[in-house]
Amino acid sequence: MSEPTSFHMSPDDFRTFGHAMVDWIADYQERVESLPVMSQVQPGDIRAMLPAAPPETGEPFADIMADVDRVILPGVTHWQSPNFFAYFPANTSGPAILGELLSAGLGVQGMLWVTSPACTELETHMMDWLVDMLDLPGIFKSTSTGGGVIQDSASSATLCALLAARERASSFAINRSGGTGRMTAYATAQTHSSVEKAMMVAGMGREHLRLVDVDATFAMRPDALAAQIAQDRAAGFTPAFVCASVGTTSSNAIDPVRAIGEICRREQIWLHVDAAMSGTAALCPEFRWIHDGLEFADSYCFNPHKWMFTNFDCDAFFVADRKALIDTLSILPEYLRNEATKSGAVIDYRDWQIPLGRRFRALKLWFVIRHYGIAGLQHHVREHVRLAQEFAGWVSESEAFDVVAPAPLNLVCFRHRGGDTANQQIMDRLNLSGNLYLTHTKLDGKLTLRLVVGQTSTRAEHVAAAWMQIQDAAAAVTAQRA
Amino acid sequence: MSEPTSFHMSPDDFRTFGHAMVDWIADYQERVESLPVMSQVQPGDIRAMLPAAPPETGEPFADIMADVDRVILPGVTHWQSPNFFAYFPANTSGPAILGELLSAGLGVQGMLWVTSPACTELETHMMDWLVDMLDLPGIFKSTSTGGGVIQDSASSATLCALLAARERASSFAINRSGGTGRMTAYATAQTHSSVEKAMMVAGMGREHLRLVDVDATFAMRPDALAAQIAQDRAAGFTPAFVCASVGTTSSNAIDPVRAIGEICRREQIWLHVDAAMSGTAALCPEFRWIHDGLEFADSYCFNPHKWMFTNFDCDAFFVADRKALIDTLSILPEYLRNEATKSGAVIDYRDWQIPLGRRFRALKLWFVIRHYGIAGLQHHVREHVRLAQEFAGWVSESEAFDVVAPAPLNLVCFRHRGGDTANQQIMDRLNLSGNLYLTHTKLDGKLTLRLVVGQTSTRAEHVAAAWMQIQDAAAAVTAQRA
Repeated sequence: MSEPTSFHMSPDDFRTFGHAMVDWIADYQERVESLPVMSQVQPGDIRAMLPAAPPETGEPFADIMADVDRVILPGVTHWQSPNFFAYFPANTSGPAILGELLSAGLGVQGMLWVTSPACTELETHMMDWLVDMLDLPGIFKSTSTGGGVIQDSASSATLCALLAARERASSFAINRSGGTGRMTAYATAQTHSSVEKAMMVAGMGREHLRLVDVDATFAMRPDALAAQIAQDRAAGFTPAFVCASVGTTSSNAIDPVRAIGEICRREQIWLHVDAAMSGTAALCPEFRWIHDGLEFADSYCFNPHKWMFTNFDCDAFFVADRKALIDTLSILPEYLRNEATKSGAVIDYRDWQIPLGRRFRALKLWFVIRHYGIAGLQHHVREHVRLAQEFAGWVSESEAFDVVAPAPLNLVCFRHRGGDTANQQIMDRLNLSGNLYLTHTKLDGKLTLRLVVGQTSTRAEHVAAAWMQIQDAAAAVTAQRA
Repeated sequence: MSEPTSFHMSPDDFRTFGHAMVDWIADYQERVESLPVMSQVQPGDIRAMLPAAPPETGEPFADIMADVDRVILPGVTHWQSPNFFAYFPANTSGPAILGELLSAGLGVQGMLWVTSPACTELETHMMDWLVDMLDLPGIFKSTSTGGGVIQDSASSATLCALLAARERASSFAINRSGGTGRMTAYATAQTHSSVEKAMMVAGMGREHLRLVDVDATFAMRPDALAAQIAQDRAAGFTPAFVCASVGTTSSNAIDPVRAIGEICRREQIWLHVDAAMSGTAALCPEFRWIHDGLEFADSYCFNPHKWMFTNFDCDAFFVADRKALIDTLSILPEYLRNEATKSGAVIDYRDWQIPLGRRFRALKLWFVIRHYGIAGLQHHVREHVRLAQEFAGWVSESEAFDVVAPAPLNLVCFRHRGGDTANQQIMDRLNLSGNLYLTHTKLDGKLTLRLVVGQTSTRAEHVAAAWMQIQDAAAAVTAQRA
């Protein structure tokens, strides 16, 4: 017998195993509700089930699939469970998964227009669609001075925005000669940690990130922002960047974008608006007030991969002036030069992001928008908000719990009256039960439970069951301590 | 009739459409060879076929799939064609695609160990396997002081390495207080553009990137490096970072890692080794000389998404001292605090990268390694190198063409003797034919054609056909000019 000349999976085998994988995922969708939401393994448990050495020769695909069930699944925290109420959601959907599959199957690179024109043009088109769907300022459209691009995450979008702000404020001198450490940025203690990380990455120094005071709703106080800017200017700093949050990670606080934007416009400071989760709400006209004043923003992002049924990664990042972004991130080595780029008639998205390579991520967004239609997306977002509001009502009416922050959309921050220890015990008990998963934050220095309604398959009965179990856990903890 | 209560794709529909998508991809694999490799569309052609407005209501999935063929496919440059010889490859395979599909189906976040333990532990395990498979220094293993992590791209790996170098050289003062612009980094004019971009992003300034002279093989000259470092120290700069390339993008030049590493060790400068494409060759013992001296490296990366049949994105990034990397990139807001992190017993990969969120990318690597086994991967890498060497031989023996740079592995740089215009015309003619796709670089100021053998399905007959067509194109161009 001769040596095999190919170890590749043939298209026919791909058909067979591909169908099996699709069926596995469909089965998973049907049974995920029955699995413990938070993985119950201990550190090292998964690695202990894996062989120390890689295989010398290939293994049958059926063995690999069997190990997915045996080794991997116990170590999975089921983000797609309808009983997942933790962090922010990272929901997905059938059409999104199939878009990702197609992207993997085509295996193209979208770093330049010429490396696959459809990858760039579909992405530009989807970003323009999103401007219409969310009724965002028209300046974010590719037909205006701005444009949108898919980033892997809001963290990366924030970094790109900060870099463009840094360069605009320094007339592109830092790109050329390095940083001075005399440039300041502004957020609040409630702003996502990615701003602090971006300050470090950009060489601006985290001590130059000013944490502006918040009001009783945990939203940025414009008067405090203005005062801090004035103080910094007096001390010889160059204020360069403000990040306003439309829905903080901690409590979904909505910073007053219009008042902040007016200050930024006057002071010529780059305003970035981070609406990572909550931006999706603007699909529905009744929630568009969250974006009031967005026309003052230099950049904006929200994550279809959080709440718009498009699996991670898919952050939609928009700028009002694409030239500032491109001038900040552009590099053109000889081996990437080509006629289309030289003509100026095309977008090369590698100049809109940190990495060079990029996947065909617009496919999943296209699939999602077309499968659901605007009306279908609106329906589910409305339903999530309705369920969260209902939950907030139950908490408010209860004897033992309080809602402790405004709940404008689908996140409810609440607290048992028994103090930090009781709340920690309630959370641990719930999460260890496997029946649901929620996480915490601190507000006013106190441990606070968070419940987010945003997973694709979460329905009324799941939220109702969660509330029952939260009450039961509280009763058990109280009894134990009594 | 009542309003629908769900617009989601049901598991049963997912089965149906998923099977259809798998079949579409299998068909694509079977017919990709017959499609024009480089897309022949003009700027705007794809957008012109898309409706201006997003759909109000959902559309049947069959309509979406029909538009994949009608709208998308003409705008795709077929990176998975066996006749794709351009840039560096970004090859993929059946098991990799299915791993990506499973990752999308599970839809988990791997930012912390606790958010899905299997996502973190499988990744750590695969990175340790790769150390063994490529015979990399043991210090890169998680069981030593180092460890590996999957980044989206070598660009991001380079940025992380540069940031860690910057912080180590400044005793973490730049993270705190911002940059001084007095720190220098070293590469060559042949080094990937991501180093220059990283210098800009990190606030270190691109003018502080020193382009060290290369020798006749386009590899960095260690004596020139040492001299430049001495000169910079004398001028009051702090040399902080050297990037050595194992296989430059331009011509696959191999920088002398050992000699460079000895200088870096003596001078206490962070050495990053970028083996984005060529690292995969080290699967085969006979090619491991490319990594000679790698024990001097502080960090290293190669891309399984280029040449190891694992679809983009999958860059394997290793550090010798994980603490330096983590101290550079770590941020811990309250809403991410948890017992496992506090215990120190687990890895939280969000501290090893720029973004916070992360997909379950280790699955595709696991599938690939298990499907092929080490022997299967070695077979195909050897075959690609053999085919490229054969091609180089044909070029060398020809009257009209010359090989113009060493071709140690699977990239051949060559040139027609007719000068830049002739080479440009030959390339344009070939690429417009749709029969194959190759790209160019400049070496010694002259336009140079590049042919890379690295796509999954490229076999001997494709390389032979490419050489026939290159000769034909040259003859046609010569005849036209005569």
